[in-house]
Amino acid sequence: MNVSQIFNRTFPSTLRFLRGYTRISGTEINPNMQKLEYAVRGPIVMRANEIEKCLLSGEKRPFDSIIRCNIGDCQNAGQLPISFIRQVIAVATDTELMDSSVIPEDAKLRALRFLKSVGGSVGCYSQSVGVEVVREDIADYIEQRDGIPSNPDDIFLASGASEAVKFILELVATTKEGSQRAGIMIPIPQYPLYSATISEYNNYQIGYYLEEETGWSLSETELEKRLEEAKAHCTPRVLVVINPGNPTGQVLTRENIESVLRFAHRHNLLVLADEVYQHNIYAPDRKFHSFKRVLHDLGGDIAKEVQLASMMSASKGFMGECGFRGGYCELVNFDPEVRAQLYKCLSARLCPPVLGQLTMNVVVNPPKPGEPSYEKFCTQKSNVLSDLAKKAKLVENLFNELPGYHSQPVMGAMYAFPRLELPPKAIQAAERAKLPVDTFYVTKLLEETGVCVVPGSGFNQKPGTYHFRTTILPTVERMQIMMERLGEFHMKFLNQYK
Amino acid sequence: MNVSQIFNRTFPSTLRFLRGYTRISGTEINPNMQKLEYAVRGPIVMRANEIEKCLLSGEKRPFDSIIRCNIGDCQNAGQLPISFIRQVIAVATDTELMDSSVIPEDAKLRALRFLKSVGGSVGCYSQSVGVEVVREDIADYIEQRDGIPSNPDDIFLASGASEAVKFILELVATTKEGSQRAGIMIPIPQYPLYSATISEYNNYQIGYYLEEETGWSLSETELEKRLEEAKAHCTPRVLVVINPGNPTGQVLTRENIESVLRFAHRHNLLVLADEVYQHNIYAPDRKFHSFKRVLHDLGGDIAKEVQLASMMSASKGFMGECGFRGGYCELVNFDPEVRAQLYKCLSARLCPPVLGQLTMNVVVNPPKPGEPSYEKFCTQKSNVLSDLAKKAKLVENLFNELPGYHSQPVMGAMYAFPRLELPPKAIQAAERAKLPVDTFYVTKLLEETGVCVVPGSGFNQKPGTYHFRTTILPTVERMQIMMERLGEFHMKFLNQYK
Repeated sequence: MNVSQIFNRTFPSTLRFLRGYTRISGTEINPNMQKLEYAVRGPIVMRANEIEKCLLSGEKRPFDSIIRCNIGDCQNAGQLPISFIRQVIAVATDTELMDSSVIPEDAKLRALRFLKSVGGSVGCYSQSVGVEVVREDIADYIEQRDGIPSNPDDIFLASGASEAVKFILELVATTKEGSQRAGIMIPIPQYPLYSATISEYNNYQIGYYLEEETGWSLSETELEKRLEEAKAHCTPRVLVVINPGNPTGQVLTRENIESVLRFAHRHNLLVLADEVYQHNIYAPDRKFHSFKRVLHDLGGDIAKEVQLASMMSASKGFMGECGFRGGYCELVNFDPEVRAQLYKCLSARLCPPVLGQLTMNVVVNPPKPGEPSYEKFCTQKSNVLSDLAKKAKLVENLFNELPGYHSQPVMGAMYAFPRLELPPKAIQAAERAKLPVDTFYVTKLLEETGVCVVPGSGFNQKPGTYHFRTTILPTVERMQIMMERLGEFHMKFLNQYK
Repeated sequence: MNVSQIFNRTFPSTLRFLRGYTRISGTEINPNMQKLEYAVRGPIVMRANEIEKCLLSGEKRPFDSIIRCNIGDCQNAGQLPISFIRQVIAVATDTELMDSSVIPEDAKLRALRFLKSVGGSVGCYSQSVGVEVVREDIADYIEQRDGIPSNPDDIFLASGASEAVKFILELVATTKEGSQRAGIMIPIPQYPLYSATISEYNNYQIGYYLEEETGWSLSETELEKRLEEAKAHCTPRVLVVINPGNPTGQVLTRENIESVLRFAHRHNLLVLADEVYQHNIYAPDRKFHSFKRVLHDLGGDIAKEVQLASMMSASKGFMGECGFRGGYCELVNFDPEVRAQLYKCLSARLCPPVLGQLTMNVVVNPPKPGEPSYEKFCTQKSNVLSDLAKKAKLVENLFNELPGYHSQPVMGAMYAFPRLELPPKAIQAAERAKLPVDTFYVTKLLEETGVCVVPGSGFNQKPGTYHFRTTILPTVERMQIMMERLGEFHMKFLNQYK
């Protein structure tokens, strides 16, 4: 024990001023924030940044560049933005461009319509729930997608889907002393925003395993079992489902969604459906079924009762406009008083980024046939999506050719999550290095090849299994280089630890 | 007691499923969120929106339009954006404009420099703490402003200053059961973001009164007194100071800031300096003194020890770009471990809006003499600021001409906060209407004149005093109309309740 620790034990905190001013230390901050972890931007990524700086300063390595497959940042990986989105935003921002022939007429009309609804300038605050025409267009988009009504008043915009998720998980938190914590069921593996937000609001995490062998599907038996176990520790309130899946790339069948909704109904759970990858479906035998539509089709009490919050984003899909921070949430079957309380809380953050809202607006209301930008928009969109489909298949196939690799089909989203069988000697080496086995593997991969992926432990996984998540975002050519580097590394690794 | 209440009493919550699915009700949500209030967008503003809709649909009223003086939304009130900011953003967004002569060359160079630092596209995620060149430019700006060093690693960008404030107040929260809540000292009157965020993170609010008679200055005696009273209920950790003041329009003297910093040092308080109005100084005898500079000049232990978090925004000043959600926070004297924990938490929200960061970038690094956009930029900036100075004087003078009105000098920021002496009969009428007296007054003002201001009770005020906050943002002409409507209303009001 050092002097300061002895001092802290000896003197109660009310006497601290005798020592003069003391700064807040790392152990004195909000314990929820201490607990919070977010692997997608964790230590591996920081190390990748360091190596990149070394490379730029001329240091020699067996590779010439970092290939970033750690984060769903489409444009950073080389994807080009959709021109129409950018044109609308440019002219809405600098209205002197209304006179310029560089901007197509339909982009100008879009910008004008939006400006009218936001006080005449993108520099104004919008309504806290978001610009009215945007919420109307989102409701139309949902109606067209699902064939059932959607109410703009049940939709709120957010700074990316992440912010919307945070608001819902904050809303259900039971912060009163002595009361049981709110239980949030999340898939394992999961997107670490969920575990981070559960920590932040001191909710109780109830992990349920996805079934890797059946393409990462959800099992009702597993859900029942985990819920039952958790009841002693919390009051279960929310079931989170990510479809299409992150990090798994799965796309749920309609039957699977139905069984999940019945389960939620039986147990009074609010369903948080993370559907931000709804445009990213690659498996020819799968399609996107929205939770809202499946809920509606179930009919009866279930359709009228189950509370659903569905998330969508401008950062993923074919647009990949992460930097604009656009996203929305649709509330279904919420108590009006709860919705009012939530909207009141939204007002304290004033409003989501106005141009993120405009991005979302174009995504849900793209150019129509006959409009000047229609053809180009469709071509750009389908190019991005067909490239992603190509890479999904490429990655899945190449992984499954490597000894010890097992990849489920990459049906959707933007990720593969292969399972690794590693030799006992590698596992011992990881133990000696005091690293989780998958972290050991991907750290060596990064150091030796410059390929940056995120270890499965950052997403959570079944004990004794090892995975990593890679995006499929680099261009087809870069993705091929990445797989070559990885294949070579893997064979060397197996040889080293055989 | 109705049937459902009887049921709830009779059956424990584990048996609830017998009733079938029950939605979360308004009383079951996070109690911190139930408590949260944010007056700037409260009931008065909703009523103003309703009246506006009626006017637009042709309904007749004694006035033809709502004059919104409730929120610091510059451009909504008619202020024009600064061209250079918009040009940089437009060309960074739609890079095809790089070939267009409509965009000046210096705007293009700015955009290119920024793009290089953010992965080549404004659609990329930035670093969680913000784009590197932006943090570097902010550090330069602070160095020039204060004449002392600033480290880009101590600066993080946020979605407006509001988000930065929320992170700091979340960081100090003591969420462990049984531990005393963190005490946050805030001025009364205050900007309601603070009381809302204190509720959200279950901190303990320690209000200290500003001295209206001395131009809303801070009194060390008052601070000591309130801190002493609060110690039984909380562990005081943060002192919030808003300078220039919101809603008061005060600008603190250097001596006043010095005494505040000494007080903070004596009591181990982290100082949260809300300095978002640092460009908005109108009183000829006042200037802006940053807390950082005054802290430095105090020297000795104080300068080395007091933790300071200073906030700045792209939403106020001369630019008023609220919709872009740009803001930053500089940390001074923070424990490196605490900074690391905070930055870890920032990563879970991925990044602040990239174009908000670009807006902030131009604000801290405006065009230089000799660059093509320099002259225009300076003219636009000084026009906005001189108009604001004109309106600050106008409003103060006109208020003080009205019987029963007392306005302190509007030295800075964008608000006046006059005190009202109202006749006993008006106070009785408010009691009969079950409304706070100031709410009663401003509700009548809105209904009869269309002028929308926020009652003092939304900001808190000394018991028995009545105020409201008005912005000085409408154009000079509109502001004159507003004051005419208000003057007429007030005389009628006095007559009615004499």
